[in-house]
Amino acid sequence: MPHSTDPTQQSQIEQLLQFLSFPSISADRAYADHLIECAEWLLQKFDSLGLAATLHKTAGHPIIVARTPPRPDLRTVLIYGHYDVQPVDPLALWDSAPFDPHIVDEVVFARGATDNKGQILAHILGVEEALKKGPLPVNLIFLIEGEEEIGSPHLGAFLEENKAELAADVVAISDTGMIAPGVPTFTYGLRGVAALEIELTGPAVDLHSGIYGGTVANPATALARLLATLHQPDGTVAIEGFYDDVDPLQDWERTAWAALPLKPEDFVSLTGVTELFGEPGYTALERVWARPTAEVNGIGGGYQGEGSKTVIPSRAFAKLTFRLVPRQSPEKILALAQAHLEKNLPPGVTLAVHPGHSGSSYVVDPHSADGLAAQRALENTFGATVALVREGGSIPIVQNFKDILGADTLLLGLALPDCRAHSPNENFPLANFFAGIRLNQELLRQLAGTT
Amino acid sequence: MPHSTDPTQQSQIEQLLQFLSFPSISADRAYADHLIECAEWLLQKFDSLGLAATLHKTAGHPIIVARTPPRPDLRTVLIYGHYDVQPVDPLALWDSAPFDPHIVDEVVFARGATDNKGQILAHILGVEEALKKGPLPVNLIFLIEGEEEIGSPHLGAFLEENKAELAADVVAISDTGMIAPGVPTFTYGLRGVAALEIELTGPAVDLHSGIYGGTVANPATALARLLATLHQPDGTVAIEGFYDDVDPLQDWERTAWAALPLKPEDFVSLTGVTELFGEPGYTALERVWARPTAEVNGIGGGYQGEGSKTVIPSRAFAKLTFRLVPRQSPEKILALAQAHLEKNLPPGVTLAVHPGHSGSSYVVDPHSADGLAAQRALENTFGATVALVREGGSIPIVQNFKDILGADTLLLGLALPDCRAHSPNENFPLANFFAGIRLNQELLRQLAGTT
Repeated sequence: MPHSTDPTQQSQIEQLLQFLSFPSISADRAYADHLIECAEWLLQKFDSLGLAATLHKTAGHPIIVARTPPRPDLRTVLIYGHYDVQPVDPLALWDSAPFDPHIVDEVVFARGATDNKGQILAHILGVEEALKKGPLPVNLIFLIEGEEEIGSPHLGAFLEENKAELAADVVAISDTGMIAPGVPTFTYGLRGVAALEIELTGPAVDLHSGIYGGTVANPATALARLLATLHQPDGTVAIEGFYDDVDPLQDWERTAWAALPLKPEDFVSLTGVTELFGEPGYTALERVWARPTAEVNGIGGGYQGEGSKTVIPSRAFAKLTFRLVPRQSPEKILALAQAHLEKNLPPGVTLAVHPGHSGSSYVVDPHSADGLAAQRALENTFGATVALVREGGSIPIVQNFKDILGADTLLLGLALPDCRAHSPNENFPLANFFAGIRLNQELLRQLAGTT
Repeated sequence: MPHSTDPTQQSQIEQLLQFLSFPSISADRAYADHLIECAEWLLQKFDSLGLAATLHKTAGHPIIVARTPPRPDLRTVLIYGHYDVQPVDPLALWDSAPFDPHIVDEVVFARGATDNKGQILAHILGVEEALKKGPLPVNLIFLIEGEEEIGSPHLGAFLEENKAELAADVVAISDTGMIAPGVPTFTYGLRGVAALEIELTGPAVDLHSGIYGGTVANPATALARLLATLHQPDGTVAIEGFYDDVDPLQDWERTAWAALPLKPEDFVSLTGVTELFGEPGYTALERVWARPTAEVNGIGGGYQGEGSKTVIPSRAFAKLTFRLVPRQSPEKILALAQAHLEKNLPPGVTLAVHPGHSGSSYVVDPHSADGLAAQRALENTFGATVALVREGGSIPIVQNFKDILGADTLLLGLALPDCRAHSPNENFPLANFFAGIRLNQELLRQLAGTT
């Protein structure tokens, strides 16, 4: 373990590697026991800090709540994170096993390294460091769930049921990105998300494509024709009414974003595509931060194995998600999408639409008192000017914090653009991990109004 | 084993069940040893009949040749068949294990029951019965391969290399269908086939669809858009030049087919679709027997598992086959398809096209001397008028028999429309199996000119 000569940092790295070794994949029920083990590890960690910690069972994966002894004279900060991770496939593209964390050149590689275990653990270890010096300057609540990657299906109800206990003045989350290494980044907006799965069925079983080809509709062909109707050739979403409620970009945002050190060519090198593609009239940044999308996350049907099998598939499916921007309602978008799919269904096949998880988009005023406090904390931690950005990903629970707890959320992310969240070789630089530990302490000081 | 009280039939059934128990799936290399076991079982069977039988190794699966002692005064008949079978997935839709043959209501259920083990074994057992009564009226060659279901990649070269040894006056194959139970059926035409696989690649790895969605092309979406260009909305193939070399249907064929006891509603009940769909201006029978098609046999990309995973897939693929009719060249169609795919490729993704197996379509004159002999054999075996049909499937090797051996092929199929070749619950009625044993003897008599 040559990564630090400081025994405290050494121990912090060891704890990170332990936390990352739990295969806490929430999307696959086969991993449910590993999520429980991971939650219990967190519980033990909070116990060791002297926080009052509880594991709450849900119909899905458990939620952990840990808190300092409440003092009525202090403000209350809720720090939210998640211990569940995305599935790991395609496994063949990983350079090392996703749950056998490796450190290479001061970067830790593992599923969940950046999203979200590395970032939430930095907050926990920040509190550990602070408590060694004395009591915290705020009442602190940690809320860490195990279902963020599947759309937090039980957290909303949990917030409702524990509204009083979880009451907070402000929420802080580190689950977003930094615009570039060393550039502290305050994220004031997120896209929402709405998921649905569609299934087309035709013949009762896979048919011999010689014996029947030409006389029945092919569900895979019909699926392709149906999915092709979702976009115009230029990449614009073609669902009627899709853009009706989209807030236009503000001039100051377009100007500020154009000045950021993240250029279209960076998206090319980060993704490995030959060229960028998307809705005309917007820069790459504007498209991912402030424009809605319709994406096919998975498609399948018929023979997938080696060689060929001359069948007309009995069924074909696609998993879709829409990314949404402020004022678009997930429910309305799902209804518009369903109507579009039904209207454009090719003949000879039957359509089933299964709506999935969804969450609203979010914007917070970066010039509020807490917004400014967060930016001061970032600036003090990194010693550099803070970038004001929005982000293309979704943290649907942020809207619940606003609606149920009445609290704004501050997003102080530590992921770099090449941390590969959701992808093979996900990683997190140790420098960002240690910055997160410092940021936690600076943030609580700024939010307490004590500095 | 209550299916027959006749000890000969009893033994014939037992041999059929043995033959069907080999999982001889040619498309999957993992089954290669089972194909060898199956070929050796055949070899042993031919040895027991006193035929000179040889197992020929190929770069793929072995070919079996067995023959009677040649007499120059007799005509030579080559009977072709295959011991390989299609893959079994989706396995979950089988009512019994595909390689644990079961007999239910005098119908045997197993992968390969109808395509082609049941039919080729009927010929072998027909010869066994005939030989008990005396020498055959023709020189007989059995040619049984193990790669029909993957396009017979090594059989053409084998025919070339063994042209003299395999010289025959006529070829007979039972690997096609009967128009209806009890209706003897002579198939005078087959469609050809041409396969290709396409792969679209975009980002280097699967990307987070929130972080990057909107700024790069999605290969699954691009694949859908590309596949959607293959057909007009009415089901007509939209590849430029696709129909240029298609021979029109003859008036006598359209009239004869309209009178057959196979109606559009039969295709609905056989396939389980809600409605038929295909090229306008043709009946269902005409579309599957005499019109070319473009079918998606498999499609895949992105997340296929339970729940959702919000990625932009790095790649997406489709497996396509074209069914071809007389005068369409597989090579030309593959070239037209490739040009079409390149021309219609959406921006932002890279296309790779991998051509697969192919084979020409075939027609034989049903009014030739051997055609009429085959029809007499069918009529005598079944005691009913023979239906003259074409078939939508492909037996590419038939064109090789014409080109290399100079011999026409007679197609005397025994499969019923609900035998589910290539599908779960493939089956073959014992009545057809025993009819095949009788047909073999009647056919050799008719072809010898001895009756």
